[in-house]
Amino acid sequence: MTKLPCAVLGATGVVGQYFLALLADHPEFQVQKVCASESRTGRRIADVPRLIDADLSALGDLEFSPLDMVSLADAGIRVVFSALPADVSKQIEPQAAQAGLCVFSNASAFRMAPQVPILIPEVNADQLALVEYQQRDTSGFIVTNANCTTTGLALALLPLRALGIRRVILSSYQAISGAGYPGLSALDISGNVIPYIAGEEEKIALESGKIFGRLNGETICHADWEVQAHCIRVPTRVGHLLSVHVEMEKTVAESQIVQLYEHCEAPLAVQGLATAPHKPVLLTKDPCRPQPLHDVLAGTPARARGMAVTVGRLQVKGNAVRFVALANNLIRGAAGGSVLNAELAHREGRL
Amino acid sequence: MTKLPCAVLGATGVVGQYFLALLADHPEFQVQKVCASESRTGRRIADVPRLIDADLSALGDLEFSPLDMVSLADAGIRVVFSALPADVSKQIEPQAAQAGLCVFSNASAFRMAPQVPILIPEVNADQLALVEYQQRDTSGFIVTNANCTTTGLALALLPLRALGIRRVILSSYQAISGAGYPGLSALDISGNVIPYIAGEEEKIALESGKIFGRLNGETICHADWEVQAHCIRVPTRVGHLLSVHVEMEKTVAESQIVQLYEHCEAPLAVQGLATAPHKPVLLTKDPCRPQPLHDVLAGTPARARGMAVTVGRLQVKGNAVRFVALANNLIRGAAGGSVLNAELAHREGRL
Amino acid sequence: MTKLPCAVLGATGVVGQYFLALLADHPEFQVQKVCASESRTGRRIADVPRLIDADLSALGDLEFSPLDMVSLADAGIRVVFSALPADVSKQIEPQAAQAGLCVFSNASAFRMAPQVPILIPEVNADQLALVEYQQRDTSGFIVTNANCTTTGLALALLPLRALGIRRVILSSYQAISGAGYPGLSALDISGNVIPYIAGEEEKIALESGKIFGRLNGETICHADWEVQAHCIRVPTRVGHLLSVHVEMEKTVAESQIVQLYEHCEAPLAVQGLATAPHKPVLLTKDPCRPQPLHDVLAGTPARARGMAVTVGRLQVKGNAVRFVALANNLIRGAAGGSVLNAELAHREGRL
Amino acid sequence: MTKLPCAVLGATGVVGQYFLALLADHPEFQVQKVCASESRTGRRIADVPRLIDADLSALGDLEFSPLDMVSLADAGIRVVFSALPADVSKQIEPQAAQAGLCVFSNASAFRMAPQVPILIPEVNADQLALVEYQQRDTSGFIVTNANCTTTGLALALLPLRALGIRRVILSSYQAISGAGYPGLSALDISGNVIPYIAGEEEKIALESGKIFGRLNGETICHADWEVQAHCIRVPTRVGHLLSVHVEMEKTVAESQIVQLYEHCEAPLAVQGLATAPHKPVLLTKDPCRPQPLHDVLAGTPARARGMAVTVGRLQVKGNAVRFVALANNLIRGAAGGSVLNAELAHREGRL
Repeated sequence: MTKLPCAVLGATGVVGQYFLALLADHPEFQVQKVCASESRTGRRIADVPRLIDADLSALGDLEFSPLDMVSLADAGIRVVFSALPADVSKQIEPQAAQAGLCVFSNASAFRMAPQVPILIPEVNADQLALVEYQQRDTSGFIVTNANCTTTGLALALLPLRALGIRRVILSSYQAISGAGYPGLSALDISGNVIPYIAGEEEKIALESGKIFGRLNGETICHADWEVQAHCIRVPTRVGHLLSVHVEMEKTVAESQIVQLYEHCEAPLAVQGLATAPHKPVLLTKDPCRPQPLHDVLAGTPARARGMAVTVGRLQVKGNAVRFVALANNLIRGAAGGSVLNAELAHREGRL
Repeated sequence: MTKLPCAVLGATGVVGQYFLALLADHPEFQVQKVCASESRTGRRIADVPRLIDADLSALGDLEFSPLDMVSLADAGIRVVFSALPADVSKQIEPQAAQAGLCVFSNASAFRMAPQVPILIPEVNADQLALVEYQQRDTSGFIVTNANCTTTGLALALLPLRALGIRRVILSSYQAISGAGYPGLSALDISGNVIPYIAGEEEKIALESGKIFGRLNGETICHADWEVQAHCIRVPTRVGHLLSVHVEMEKTVAESQIVQLYEHCEAPLAVQGLATAPHKPVLLTKDPCRPQPLHDVLAGTPARARGMAVTVGRLQVKGNAVRFVALANNLIRGAAGGSVLNAELAHREGRL
Repeated sequence: MTKLPCAVLGATGVVGQYFLALLADHPEFQVQKVCASESRTGRRIADVPRLIDADLSALGDLEFSPLDMVSLADAGIRVVFSALPADVSKQIEPQAAQAGLCVFSNASAFRMAPQVPILIPEVNADQLALVEYQQRDTSGFIVTNANCTTTGLALALLPLRALGIRRVILSSYQAISGAGYPGLSALDISGNVIPYIAGEEEKIALESGKIFGRLNGETICHADWEVQAHCIRVPTRVGHLLSVHVEMEKTVAESQIVQLYEHCEAPLAVQGLATAPHKPVLLTKDPCRPQPLHDVLAGTPARARGMAVTVGRLQVKGNAVRFVALANNLIRGAAGGSVLNAELAHREGRL
Repeated sequence: MTKLPCAVLGATGVVGQYFLALLADHPEFQVQKVCASESRTGRRIADVPRLIDADLSALGDLEFSPLDMVSLADAGIRVVFSALPADVSKQIEPQAAQAGLCVFSNASAFRMAPQVPILIPEVNADQLALVEYQQRDTSGFIVTNANCTTTGLALALLPLRALGIRRVILSSYQAISGAGYPGLSALDISGNVIPYIAGEEEKIALESGKIFGRLNGETICHADWEVQAHCIRVPTRVGHLLSVHVEMEKTVAESQIVQLYEHCEAPLAVQGLATAPHKPVLLTKDPCRPQPLHDVLAGTPARARGMAVTVGRLQVKGNAVRFVALANNLIRGAAGGSVLNAELAHREGRL
């Protein structure tokens, strides 16, 4: 099978490098171009400081080209993965879609645009159909992955959806890698906790309403739950842990909830995608888990390491379901999320 | 004025050493004895590894004597501060009360005993009257301070009490010093988060119900709010931070809540006690505060450093009040709490 | 090829679990027994808290048997890997050798025994011959790996040996995992440095003298260099970094030294052993490397990850050679070292 | 006694804020002006994010004025403390001296200028006389404090100077605060060690040669010892720890060396200065000390907290003296060092 030629935009940051790592030996996609801001043009991947502990040597000789989307399309690229900063993505990604490219983006810029899906395949694979409305006068489109914290929350709530969720109260324990590189000053966060992450709490509320919304023609009716979050930074490296209190529509039985978590599976449309974990949500009964240090790479098979969310301390009382969840903010919550989105689009014949 | 002679029980751990530090130059109490388990007897304070960064040299020559409560009473001691482990305190503290000693204890052993108050002077000074029922056939009694996390929560809720609290949902970010010394293995907690602290969540629910209960003769009618906590350890040294969601009995106005927090004062019975902070609750408007590193010693005057709770990110919506709070788990939540309790008992003529 | 049946002694600590991880799919050895102290007997590997991030599920059903060496031999075991504590190993390892078992030990108990080699194959493969003198009335023997810090030093000095070393001055930056589990209290080491590790400095001096000594019949003439070390603990998880100043016998040229480090190879006797790294010493020219976080798993092929030592900041002036070196204290400096020793013994027909 | 009016240049960084903290209630100096780059002009001290845990409220209303040295002099200022970045200080400090101001600077820009002393009063008070050669056509001058690591080394070597030092081999364990704010990325240093600090090793060698040099008219004959340092960053917040190996000119006796350390005193010229510690070097016999967490504020009286260097693990063998030393890099190694320099100049009538 021929691989689809793809490009990575913004390949020098932490998320960009994870895109490269996940795509380096991908069965469907082949990185043929990497694009970066002018100042990087002409340098090679191997010349850029490596921020992650993955082996990028297979792609080391690729040279950075400018963020010229028409040239990419002319060169036969069909798929681009975007790790651009929000402001740059705002300008470049529409140019890409206009040039006929299929953009899978980690940037927040277009997540709330009505015709752009925030796609988490296990949760809302149907919303991918929204891209058809973007394709009225171009063959390209934009699909986004959710914010890293939203992603973990959405997957952890997946088993509960069918029973009716009314409200979510959430406190996060977010790793420093979530702020990118250089990100936080060591003087600010080492041995400390910072109880605020600008914009994060709003994103979680808005994005989860859209993700769990109902597709209605070319728009999405947002879910009307309330999500109230305290987003808080702690001195861990990778892995956003969430303490979650869910108010259900009605009283639920603990045994039923445990069963739902134990047997949570991806829908058929997603099963078997290269980067999809066998089980998207893993339930642990060890009261001391999940822990960032030990569970951040949860997920099988090997290609899905870091793609599963681990849920622990599951408790049910009346109409409240309480648990702790952990998601890898760089893989599941960023690069891996968009790679899985592209795999779904590929299977559905949209690429 | 003559100082009251006192003893510290269990003076070799972190909390015991804080008792010594806070009492070293106290205007009302004078440490005349320190007691420890047999193996320490005969050694001096100066010979014990110092676990805290306070100067204990003024008490350095005190020798450890055995945990013999009758001897303490015979030596003219009236007040003892207990930093004993739970199992030892269970045996020793009743002996102390029986011997006529007034015990101010950080141990959890008797907190839920019906006639033993869990005293936080700013919150429930009236409950000190319970000791009269302990004094039917002895002049001694036991008064406890609350669990370190409960203490911070109780003070942070103080401004809301009059409006009627229905439910509290809480996630904690607790420092490693809360586990004592040696406590946690560095391999377990460095760069990690552990989402469980054995027994802690139950203590918070039970203790806060009692603290905010109503004194009714010789018993306390517990408050019937629900408190649902996730107690979680993070790699900070000192200071338990709490992410709190409070459901009030009815809708409240943000302006009113802000006012209550801005003007929260201790009751007259507590104002001016040596270790009492001018303001028990400090409201910060900096969205990034409170932080353990910067706010753990909040409180004025100098003797009350670490005795005030800092509340930040105050938000009100409908009947929900949300905030982040920080308390010093070793001072306000342990040794300092009991010292303040003794000061209140002293002022009330109970010593 | 049939695999040699082997046992792991003390399989519940950090090093014991690394033995299991490295042997789980080893081409020459098959773990058939795990032995532990009485209290563990009857439990399974899967029931013991996992301290390392490796998948031990292939061995999960193995049950702990008692430390009975005669039974092991009777069961057809020929090779044992020992991760026993020093005091237990002192008693058990001679019993094992007496029972005809070949012991590859991480314990320090017998390292300085005259007929026991401290084996680092790339450095002193010839010293393995010492075991013949242990085999006068048994077919068993004991071979030790060096202390974790000594191992890194010895490999880092390997390229210089031929030129004549006179003295080594060393300061170490040792990770908390070197103290085992639970090891250091988080309160002692988080955000701190502790400038002393009991017994470590003496071990480095004694062991390196023996390792670089000359085999002379059944004894070893120790190298007469002086090694002066400050062994210091820092808050990293894995990887002992060394700041090294070497006084050579005579003036050396920088170009020659760089060449020696760039072309350092294992002797033929070692090349191709399953766990041997292609290059035992890797020279980096990045002035900011090696770093524990990024270089602790250095070594190719995959089975040799964590077996190579990385040397950086190489400087030469007069007769002084200065550098920084990093070794994985749990793999190269412990379990991996002994596995490599057993591979060498196997190739040499001593098992 | 009237206090001398002074100004602090660059009062928004970590060192600048330490200047303010140390001068807030100083008996000889009164901060009347704070100067900063254009962008800060008009803001008040209270409006700038506080980077240190000191109470600066007494100076909170001071407004930043521009870096105009002539205006400062016109306003009656005589003394300025400079926490300017190296490049800005290079331009501004000579303007200050030219305007008649006495500059006490933490910047490195002029440390190696022949007529500018690098002053550590306990070590080289006589070198202050160099300023006379700067004063040929102005009443102003520049005096610098040493690099933070050099300062700790110089004080730790003070007791050995009289016996003749030949060579110093040094490995440092430097705190993140040494890199200023924001300084290091948390992703780079948390749980890690970085074996290089640009320019630091050269500074230590050059500066210590000058500090221990001999004043010869208007120049200094540098000491001709060799200093070979590995400067290495570790994840501590404050306090540079040094592992030091000193080769003396000849064999020394351990008892003599211990005596020299136990009785090390400042010269008479320095004793009693407000910020001078009673003992500049404190010898600890606890093998596990000094530690950054516990010894970084060493020094009595209260005003000299953080001004003493703690030396431990003192060992003597042949002509080698080995020890570990700790200095506060922000107080003794920066702001406190320059405040002490100004006090010496004041006592000597040079202000």
